[in-house]
Amino acid sequence: MQIEITREFIEQVEEAIERQDKDFILSTMGEMHPADITTVLYELDTNESKYVMDLLPPEVGAEILSDLDYDIREDFLDYFTSAEIARYVNLMHSDDAVDILNEQSVQTREEVLALIDNEEKAEDILDLLHYEEDCAGGLMAKELIKVNLNWRVTQCIEEIRRQAEDVSRIYTVYVVDNRDILVGRVSVKSLLLSKDDKLVKDIYNPDVISIESFRDENEVVNVMQKYDLEAIPVVNIQGRLLGRITIDDVVDVMQEQAELSRQLMTGISENVEEDDSVFRISRSRLPWLIIGMVGGLLAAHFMGFFEKDIALLPALALFVPLITATGGNVGIQSSSIIIQTLSSNAVMLENFTQRILKLVLVALLNALIISILVFSFSYLFRQDLTLSIVVATALFSVVMLASMMGTITPMILDKFGINPAVAAGPFITTANDLLGITIYFGVAHLLYNL
Amino acid sequence: MQIEITREFIEQVEEAIERQDKDFILSTMGEMHPADITTVLYELDTNESKYVMDLLPPEVGAEILSDLDYDIREDFLDYFTSAEIARYVNLMHSDDAVDILNEQSVQTREEVLALIDNEEKAEDILDLLHYEEDCAGGLMAKELIKVNLNWRVTQCIEEIRRQAEDVSRIYTVYVVDNRDILVGRVSVKSLLLSKDDKLVKDIYNPDVISIESFRDENEVVNVMQKYDLEAIPVVNIQGRLLGRITIDDVVDVMQEQAELSRQLMTGISENVEEDDSVFRISRSRLPWLIIGMVGGLLAAHFMGFFEKDIALLPALALFVPLITATGGNVGIQSSSIIIQTLSSNAVMLENFTQRILKLVLVALLNALIISILVFSFSYLFRQDLTLSIVVATALFSVVMLASMMGTITPMILDKFGINPAVAAGPFITTANDLLGITIYFGVAHLLYNL
Repeated sequence: MQIEITREFIEQVEEAIERQDKDFILSTMGEMHPADITTVLYELDTNESKYVMDLLPPEVGAEILSDLDYDIREDFLDYFTSAEIARYVNLMHSDDAVDILNEQSVQTREEVLALIDNEEKAEDILDLLHYEEDCAGGLMAKELIKVNLNWRVTQCIEEIRRQAEDVSRIYTVYVVDNRDILVGRVSVKSLLLSKDDKLVKDIYNPDVISIESFRDENEVVNVMQKYDLEAIPVVNIQGRLLGRITIDDVVDVMQEQAELSRQLMTGISENVEEDDSVFRISRSRLPWLIIGMVGGLLAAHFMGFFEKDIALLPALALFVPLITATGGNVGIQSSSIIIQTLSSNAVMLENFTQRILKLVLVALLNALIISILVFSFSYLFRQDLTLSIVVATALFSVVMLASMMGTITPMILDKFGINPAVAAGPFITTANDLLGITIYFGVAHLLYNL
Repeated sequence: MQIEITREFIEQVEEAIERQDKDFILSTMGEMHPADITTVLYELDTNESKYVMDLLPPEVGAEILSDLDYDIREDFLDYFTSAEIARYVNLMHSDDAVDILNEQSVQTREEVLALIDNEEKAEDILDLLHYEEDCAGGLMAKELIKVNLNWRVTQCIEEIRRQAEDVSRIYTVYVVDNRDILVGRVSVKSLLLSKDDKLVKDIYNPDVISIESFRDENEVVNVMQKYDLEAIPVVNIQGRLLGRITIDDVVDVMQEQAELSRQLMTGISENVEEDDSVFRISRSRLPWLIIGMVGGLLAAHFMGFFEKDIALLPALALFVPLITATGGNVGIQSSSIIIQTLSSNAVMLENFTQRILKLVLVALLNALIISILVFSFSYLFRQDLTLSIVVATALFSVVMLASMMGTITPMILDKFGINPAVAAGPFITTANDLLGITIYFGVAHLLYNL
């Protein structure tokens, strides 16, 4: 059931909680999709949300907890006892369960683990807790359907029936040999299409793309996207089947990455949203503002060396914003293109010299066009030939250098294993400002003293 | 089979094409995953790629064509006759077939349609060609498995077997009534778990989330993400089942959107990659550089009004980069936070006054901190009290105003149906530069003349 959640409904829910009206809550929210209930909970106080959670069936609560943003979930779960958490974790997929346990203190984690009554689940969770969160092992769930190479189709259907309770989405049935080594896959479709007494080894597909548990989450995203997979099996270094990663986790990773690069580009250093507290939003923005401020003060310091030139010819100062803005724009454009190339799985086969040559040509073309335009306009505007030549020449040099910096900085960062997207933000803008001003006044000083 | 594609391999392929060595091509690439072949084709000339495509089985060619970037595909298909295109289209899913036909001229489209020998496919394609590309109807495929409410489980399994050839991923079986109205869903799992003579109406799940064909693609993405769906059925306004959209299409839409917002934020106006031609890359960057240039010239013009102040006190000019850089950083941060809030499906229930108040508080806090820091540093640096007061006061006003502009501009654009991300780019930076300079010199002029 798709419903529209209105301000009025939230108020009704709040009033119902106030007067402890369980019937109202259950009759309105009992039939809702867990994702819609989550939307409602986001609008309530933590105490109110806890009240609602306690009324809902534990299966629904488990789904809601699995979907919550991790920072909100961490705070929310402080309101639950270890026994309550265990009851929900018991009903979750192993990957979601591990995510939640990783957010808890060591003590709570141990308590919850001890309270999980499904032994197989507890074992799966313990197993998954060993993996780093941002590698393939940290993304996988243990729930999957696997069949042996030597089984018959009937046995496979039996196994699917048996496992179906735990595995909410089947996607692919994995085929393993007697040592549990992943050797292929077989689709439910082909099991349905085959005679009951056929052997798996006669109908399975040995082409199966898998990923090792220690691979980085970015690699998981790239492989799944490239081969258009909705699930990928995870194996250990010997090829033994450990678990599987499903497309919904990959969508989450993609979103996190988009979010991260947005933050890096806009100079916001924490994961904030508009509804966070004033102090949190303020704190997330200050680091970059201060770096920008230091850059600005350095720029003032550099310009100080040319204070005499400015005193003699104040018109020089008028073009400082043009120089810094153009340098900034060119730098961001260049870094953005190279960052995208670095992050896409494009094979970078064109060799280095060719690429630098192309980059120089693009920069040259744009620098020429912009300089000619600025020369014409500034001449029309001030009728001062020398000044126009100074501005155009400086701008030309700034565009060339900002292009180089914008391209080379991300490449260097990438070589050293730093996310190159950090270069697309205030950092490169600040560096370009300093560079632009130095070039501009340097050129002016030279040309006027000729 | 996962393989690493090396520069050496590409050269071997190129040489093999040169000497028309079909055996080499087929023996090396015949076993490759279509996605890997696509990677190889991207490195070859169009003629060479065409040569390889002609050697490969048409099923593989159809998959490669479905996966190609649309701009590359458009150029590539110019090398194919209508009969060749029809042979591939015949083997594609209806949604991919329609995407390809939409890229062709009307004449080619008609020719290809006439040459498709699978009548049902031709009909499906004709049907899909009516929908706009960026709505739910434009994303859906006609291939799906539907069963009637009154069928028995055996009949359903029969239907799945019959349709299985066309539908590569089943996900969910949709349940319709006698008028073809979507009434629910039934999973393959529950069909497998049920007795053969059970009726669909006794085992189906009436809770099915669907979307109407005219809905925007962003709505499709939001609904599928919110409810964590791997496929969503598309219905017409009467509720009749028309087709379904699968998660891989949604991943593509998400990527396009991330790409678009990256372009808007970095001022690149076309979809370019590092390996495009010099002219194309240059052209994609010029529009924003020119807007930035006009902004810079306007700034020069504004500062011109204060030329006398600068002549009297050249030190004033030194802080111009600090003012513009800080204004720019604050503006981008503010717009980025509000744009993210606007684009997420968060229900914006907090009322307008509250939000503006919070925004003012954050701006105030940051403005105070930055101004106090700058006051201290600039006083230490120049020992000039009036100048330090001027710079700090101007900076305070710039941070406040840039925060407002950065928040309000995207909200206004959003109200008018314009993608608010355009405001996060060079546009807001340029506006903030102008604003900052005017405030700075205005404040200086006032304070010095007191």
